[in-house]
Amino acid sequence: ARPKVGYFYTGKSENQEIFDKVKEIKVGEIKSIPVVVDEKTSVYDSIVSMFLNDVGTIFVISGGYLTGVVSRKDFIKSCIGGTDINKVPVGIIMTRMPNIVLAFEDETVLDAAKKIIEHEVDSLPIVEKEIIKGKEYFRVIGRISKTNITRLFIEITNI
Amino acid sequence: ARPKVGYFYTGKSENQEIFDKVKEIKVGEIKSIPVVVDEKTSVYDSIVSMFLNDVGTIFVISGGYLTGVVSRKDFIKSCIGGTDINKVPVGIIMTRMPNIVLAFEDETVLDAAKKIIEHEVDSLPIVEKEIIKGKEYFRVIGRISKTNITRLFIEITNI
Repeated sequence: ARPKVGYFYTGKSENQEIFDKVKEIKVGEIKSIPVVVDEKTSVYDSIVSMFLNDVGTIFVISGGYLTGVVSRKDFIKSCIGGTDINKVPVGIIMTRMPNIVLAFEDETVLDAAKKIIEHEVDSLPIVEKEIIKGKEYFRVIGRISKTNITRLFIEITNI
Repeated sequence: ARPKVGYFYTGKSENQEIFDKVKEIKVGEIKSIPVVVDEKTSVYDSIVSMFLNDVGTIFVISGGYLTGVVSRKDFIKSCIGGTDINKVPVGIIMTRMPNIVLAFEDETVLDAAKKIIEHEVDSLPIVEKEIIKGKEYFRVIGRISKTNITRLFIEITNI
């Protein structure tokens, strides 16, 4: 059971300790599993994958590495734009590298949250960088979204 | 300028005071403007309204009172389901009252955040209740979303 009184003999309050820790929480500690499709997947199948996994953003790969991101907004645009969603591959409608905002496991949730707000996206792919013949490639190992941050807000506030 | 050292003579730390306040922050303090359409608006025009205002959820009213909610997910479903989005009114595809989770200005952000996570939605309409001839009606006066909560997380952590 958590003590009701927040002060310890050290003069450091329980809340303060929690608060100090919150600033240090890393993306890797609250990440979710990423939903990934290949560039050649049809828009329709990508939408199905989005619904089955109940996510707002899907990461697109080619040869195992991140090449793009598609959001619900992209899907709506392509639907109302008259795209043949059964034939067109997701690679055509996605936002393509290098125009993707990335997150890394060891950066703070605070920094990731700032990127999410600044770039007006719902989630970020968490990636690992690999350098092959002098060129950068990114492997998708997770995702961090406004949902993860809202959950964290509840966790830190609900004490 | 904010003092660098977090302790005051009272023994209460600056962080603790902020933390105590965070728990008390009310929905009304961080709310956004709601995007509202009438039930008779076409699905297409509702989508346009969603894009113009860059929101993920639109609130639907009839006679000035809340009757439903439509999300990006609903729009994608109706698109791939072959709905004639120019003819069908948004009232047909929306989630209808009373199956809508509501928020009130004077409840805490923590409680609203819990509703958002529990019911797996992106945002909640902030409403004012009116009773007319013994029946409850709700006027939409704002919205609170995962974006508002992510912004609040940045504000409280980034100090």
